[in-house]
Order: sequence, then C-alpha cells, then structure tokens
Amino acid sequence: MSIQILLPRWIIPIIPRHTVYSDYALVMNGERIIALQAKDEALAAYPQATITELPEHALLPGLVNLHAHSAMTLLRGFADDLPLMRWLNEHIWPAEGMHVSDEFVFDGSQLAIAEMIAGGTTSCNDMYFHHSAVARAALDAGFRMTIGCSILEFPTAFASNADDYIGKALKSRDEFLGETLVNFTLAPHAPYTVSDTTFGRIITLADQLNLSIHCHIHETTDEIAGSLKEYGVRPLERLAQLGLLDSPLIAAHMVHTTDTEIALLTQKGVHIAHNPASNLKLASGFARIHDQLGAGINVGIGTDGAASNNKLDMFAEMRLAALLAKGQSGNPEAIPAWQALEMATLNGAIALGQLGQIGSLEVGKQADLIAVNLAACGTQPCYDPVSHLVYAADRNQVSDVWIAGRAVYRQQQHQTLKLGEIESKTRYWQHKIKAGISSKAL
Amino acid sequence: MSIQILLPRWIIPIIPRHTVYSDYALVMNGERIIALQAKDEALAAYPQATITELPEHALLPGLVNLHAHSAMTLLRGFADDLPLMRWLNEHIWPAEGMHVSDEFVFDGSQLAIAEMIAGGTTSCNDMYFHHSAVARAALDAGFRMTIGCSILEFPTAFASNADDYIGKALKSRDEFLGETLVNFTLAPHAPYTVSDTTFGRIITLADQLNLSIHCHIHETTDEIAGSLKEYGVRPLERLAQLGLLDSPLIAAHMVHTTDTEIALLTQKGVHIAHNPASNLKLASGFARIHDQLGAGINVGIGTDGAASNNKLDMFAEMRLAALLAKGQSGNPEAIPAWQALEMATLNGAIALGQLGQIGSLEVGKQADLIAVNLAACGTQPCYDPVSHLVYAADRNQVSDVWIAGRAVYRQQQHQTLKLGEIESKTRYWQHKIKAGISSKAL
Repeated sequence: MSIQILLPRWIIPIIPRHTVYSDYALVMNGERIIALQAKDEALAAYPQATITELPEHALLPGLVNLHAHSAMTLLRGFADDLPLMRWLNEHIWPAEGMHVSDEFVFDGSQLAIAEMIAGGTTSCNDMYFHHSAVARAALDAGFRMTIGCSILEFPTAFASNADDYIGKALKSRDEFLGETLVNFTLAPHAPYTVSDTTFGRIITLADQLNLSIHCHIHETTDEIAGSLKEYGVRPLERLAQLGLLDSPLIAAHMVHTTDTEIALLTQKGVHIAHNPASNLKLASGFARIHDQLGAGINVGIGTDGAASNNKLDMFAEMRLAALLAKGQSGNPEAIPAWQALEMATLNGAIALGQLGQIGSLEVGKQADLIAVNLAACGTQPCYDPVSHLVYAADRNQVSDVWIAGRAVYRQQQHQTLKLGEIESKTRYWQHKIKAGISSKAL
Repeated sequence: MSIQILLPRWIIPIIPRHTVYSDYALVMNGERIIALQAKDEALAAYPQATITELPEHALLPGLVNLHAHSAMTLLRGFADDLPLMRWLNEHIWPAEGMHVSDEFVFDGSQLAIAEMIAGGTTSCNDMYFHHSAVARAALDAGFRMTIGCSILEFPTAFASNADDYIGKALKSRDEFLGETLVNFTLAPHAPYTVSDTTFGRIITLADQLNLSIHCHIHETTDEIAGSLKEYGVRPLERLAQLGLLDSPLIAAHMVHTTDTEIALLTQKGVHIAHNPASNLKLASGFARIHDQLGAGINVGIGTDGAASNNKLDMFAEMRLAALLAKGQSGNPEAIPAWQALEMATLNGAIALGQLGQIGSLEVGKQADLIAVNLAACGTQPCYDPVSHLVYAADRNQVSDVWIAGRAVYRQQQHQTLKLGEIESKTRYWQHKIKAGISSKAL
C-alpha cells in the first residue's frame, strides 16, 4: 500500500491526553500510523503520498464497543419494556432457540457491523454463538472483532453442554489463528448460568491459551440475590474464590458494586464494560462508574445487544455514560467530555489487551481512525471539538472510517459491505422471525 | 393551496392511542388535515391531489419541544462539566451580558430552528430575551413557536427591572397579535430570581390577557434550600400561596417533587416540561417522571438550551426520557415507547393549550407532520415502528417536515431557511464570543 496523508481540521490523538492538534497531518503506511506532525512538514516529508482533505472534520481513534451481541440486531425491537429475566425467558431465548444458526449469526453480525462502521465503531468485543460465522462476517467487512465464545451449562441449538460450548470455542479459535483482525475470548455467560466446575476449566484454558475472559457480572439485583441463596455469597465473591479475577477479565455491566467490591476489582485489575442504555432499559440499575473510575478501575463502554438498547451507537452510548455519571454521582464534573472519549477508545483497547495496537493515534499503532464532520447545524458553533464529539455530535456525522489502514467507509459509503444484500437478508429474517411468532401464537 | 395526499408506510396518529395505520393516506388541504383513510379510498376521493410516496417512512405528528432557550445555540459547548450556579454565574450570564442583542437572538434562534426542523421538531416552547427577534426567526422559517418572555428582577442588557421586562413582553405580544404560528407566554425566570410582587403582577396579567406562564421550578436542591432559608417554604409552596398554580402553568424541570407536591401539581393541573439530558448534565437530579405521570400530571419533554444539553434533538430526548424513567423507578415497564411518543407530541400540545391544533394527526388539526425513514441499518429489521422511533431512530432519519401544511423540509433539504447564511452568521458569532473570552482573560 502507498503512503496516505490525512489533513483534518482537528486531530484528537487521545495519547497524549487532552490534546487537540490543528494544522496537523496524520500519515499512514499500509495498516500503520507512521507519523503525526505539522501539516507542512508532512507534505514535505512524503511528497508522493495520497492526500485526503478533511477540512471540517475531527480525526480520532475508532470507537471500541466493549460489550455487544452483534447478531442480535435481527431481534432489534422484538420485545421491549420488560424486566431482564422475563425478557430473556419469554421472548429472547425462545426466539433464539427457534432461529439462531450459522446463517442467522453471519447475517445479523454483518448488519451490526454495517451499523457500527457507519457510526464510527471500528472494533467490537462480541459475545454470542456460532463464532466462526461472526469471524467470517468481521473479516468480510474488514472489521476488528474480539469474539466471545459463549459458554453455559444448558443446551441450545448451538451446543449441548459446557464441554460442547468449550470445544466449539477452541475449534473456532484454531480456525482463525493468525488472522490479525479477529481474536477470541472465552465467555462464560454469567454466574447464574455457569457452574464452579466450568469456571475452573475456563480459568485453566484462559491461562494455557493466553485468552481473556468476558462475562456478564452483577447486572441485576436478582442475580446477586440468587447467588446469595445458592452459594451464600455475592457473585463477585464466588468468582474471586474460584480464581476468575486472576485471569484477564472483562466484566460486563457491574451495575451493583459495594465499596469492598470496587476495591477488589481495582486490586485484581478487572476491566469493566459499562452499558448505560441497556442497564436503564432493563431497569438493571445505575452503575457507580464515577466511583469505579475514581478507584482506578479501567472502564470502557459497550452498547450491549440491539435487542436491549436498541441501537449500536457508540456516540449515543458515550454521551449517555457522561451524562448519567453526573446524575448518578450528583457531581456535574463527573466524567467530563475528555474522559468519556477516552473510555470509548483507549479504555476499550486496554480492556482488550490491545493497547499496543489501537485506542489512540500514535506512531506504530494500527490505523483505526474515524473522521467526524462537525459542520452540521447541530455541532455549530464549535468552541471545543471534544465537547461536541461527546455531547452534541450524531453518529451520522461520521464521514470516513479506516480499519488497519483500509478505508471501509468513505464519504458515508460502505466500501467493504454490500448494503443491498444486507437489507434483503434482513427482510428475510424479519419475515421468518415474525412467522415464528405467529406459528407459536396459533 | 391544493390538496396533498401523503402515502407513508405507516401512519402513527397518536389519537386514537396505540394505533398504527398501514396502507393509509393522510390528506391535507392548505394548513389542515382533512382526512385519514384507506389509501385506495383517498386516491379515489381526491383524484386531483398531489401525491407524495413515502414507502419506507413513518408519518407522525411533529415533535413538540416543551422547554428551550433557542438563541443559546450560539453558546453550544461554550462551558461544560460544571454545576448549575457556577455555570450560570461564571460563564453563561457573563457571556450573555456581553453579547445578547436582537441580532444575537435572531441568529441563534434561526440556527436552533434549522436544527430542530431537521430533527423533526415542528414546535418549540421557548424562553429568552429579545422576543420580537425570536418571533421574526420563527416566522421566517415557518416554524411554530411559543415565545416565553423572560421576567426577572435584576437588570440585563435587555431590560432594567421587572417592570421593564414585562413592558417589553407585552409590546412583543402586541406586535405579533394575529400571527397563527407564534404566540407568547409570560416567563418568570425562576422562584429565586423573581419577587412575590412580580409574581403577583404576572398572575394578574396572565389572567387578563389569557396567557400561559412558563417558569423554571425545582430544578436543583440549591433552589429549594435557598427558598427554605429566604421564605421558610419550598418554592412550589410559595408559588402556590401566591396563586401561580391557578394560572395555566408550564413548570420546567420539576426535578425534585415530594408526594405532596405531586398531588398538588395534579390537583392544580400544572404541566411539567421534563428535560432529562440537561438535568443529568448539570447533575440537577432524577425527576420522578413515572410517579408524576402515574398521578395524572401532564408531562411533556424539552431539550432545554443547547448550552446545557448540548443538542436540540427531541429523538435523543424522548429516548432518554423513556430509558431514564425505567432506571429511576426500577421498573422496566415505566414509560413504554408509546407513552414516550405521546409525551413528545400530544402532551406538549396539551401543555401549550394547543390540543385543538397540534399534537396528533386528526381531521381538522393543523398539518404539523414529520416523515421518518426507517430503512437505515440502525432501524432494521422493524417489528414495531413505534419502538424504533423511540429506541432506535436517529434524528437524521427525518426526511420531510410540514408545519401548518407547508413543506419546510423536503428530502432532507431546508425549504424555508438558507443554511449558508446561517452558517456564516454562526461563524461570525463564534469569533466574536471567542474574542470576548480572550479580551476578558487579558
């Protein structure tokens, strides 16, 4: 690949912190960033480079969606306004049981990836079934995906028991070994769906294979009450006793945390994926993000699945995280704009163990970049582009997206995905899933 | 004007409640809706009509922004991440003191109206200064505006004391008497900035001139503590004693309400303008919207000004209201999608005393309509258009907007506003306001 120079109005590199470059250029060669320097210097240093002018745009690292179930886009808005366990037991799990397959997961993941790329997300920490289908969807799109291989005790159409889930996880991992855009985590679903024995196996495998673990933890008070009843301790304490917190761990949700638990999470270096929209929608509660961040925990931001959000919009999620932390803590200085932007980029990269690759615009890192056009009425005037990115911008202001140096979205057009095909597949699934409801209702 | 037939995929009339029409037509003649009927019947009944196909669109009443300070778009992102009183005293009020003028208010209101129209808002309940400039901006754009004439005790560049504010309010009202798109309210700023005597005058005037009152009430705990100290009672009780609650009253914010206060607001028929984003951003608190609605209070939704939000996006605000009510009440069934949509349309119209004119798609009402294209990836598949409008749609999916039957926005293009002019005026103000900061800092 040839050398490319991007000339945006502003560059927000995230590292160094709290920095906005004007009259600066980002230079990339192939998949990597090779320079950030004054515009004139860059133009002189690389006279043969391809130049892209972005005169009204902020250039920043692609957003990292730290918790999602991508394929569930096909169940977007399928059931709303219900509590978590009724929503899962009566709606989501039955629909999944009837429809989830390699084809469903490929098509649903592709729809999710199309939505995420167009909204400035370049990387996603997923958790679902049919992992190889997720990997194929990501690679087809040129999208960076960490694929969480769900593990639980009870059977689904995908696997019959914990051993079967684990076997399939390892098979998918082997199948895509060497791919740089996709990698895998072991994803025990939650404390209430996974036994001590299985957690033990997962810890051993994670250690042997150098894998991270991705698990829903402390999402609801019901989960905590159930654990107290069954195990005599809160879920986090049980997991700590089992040794799970000594593995690289991304805890999704962590809505309910005591001071002691926050201290434990800090001490163990557990990463949290905060999902503010989903936690509100299912009335799971208000996470103590300001306290968690204050204690030094690395907190990133996720959208959760489109069935409980109902959009994979990291701009909306970043804004909500920043607003909600102020309301929840009673402190209007909680999570200022800069911190929200770091959570949605750098902190996600740290949680994924990819700090050396993504999360900031630094020389040597992968060129995962987004350009956001701030010329719209809704982001004018502009006294501070970082404030606007967090509090005012809409995801549709993302104009261009590069992942590993490849332009996957240019001037608001997908370059790697065929929208027409995705749309017709989505219509197919909508009819099929609707018919499934009807046949069940008869 | 000639007869127009709109043929959307779905019509969501709001009244009758919980109704979605398919294969239906909306027919308008001039400024009014004259029929909602089966598509074939409409085409047969009005063979000469102009037909607009909206094959992927939901057609619904324009959104009513029940609390805004439109001209403050020019201070969007000017100061963030601060508590209300520091934000007002150290940043917003000094900047306003330096810059607010007829020209500032006209230009800022025009920018706000451009943003609101493009985001599906057809009507706004404003509160600011230089009311005639607001009215001119609304009329130029063909936008429906209720103009709250701010009244306070202390002097600003606009007026010197309460009498002066009131005099200017009445002058503006007289100037635009007979205009159907603009009308006026008396807007005592807040209990902490308005004296008993002035409230008394406002109540008398509201009664004599048949005007509604629009006032910030119970926005912060500081406001309540201040009133307890100065008057020995909470602000709402003081206002009740003064008789303010017996006038038609829109109370903006009402974040902090006891059970007794909720009962009083219900009994007096006070309308609430709920501003979830602003209340979070300034850490004012969580309004008990679910309880307020449950008690029978009419609650609409507002964006507040762009200096504390920082966007005038009623889609984002409606979604946040629905999500936050679930989190705040701990009840995932609180404010389901239908109710959120009613709050953003019908309840706003009721609060403004305009139920006979707007807020639903009914024969005889004003044709204030928006078409929202749900074909985007982020709103596919679509099992329920109402769920998507509230939980998944972005404001940029609004394709067309009619106000009083006039197409002010067609295929995402403004028809009444010149964006280029608005943009250059906005740049002018940005430079001037920035220079103001610099000169002060020197």
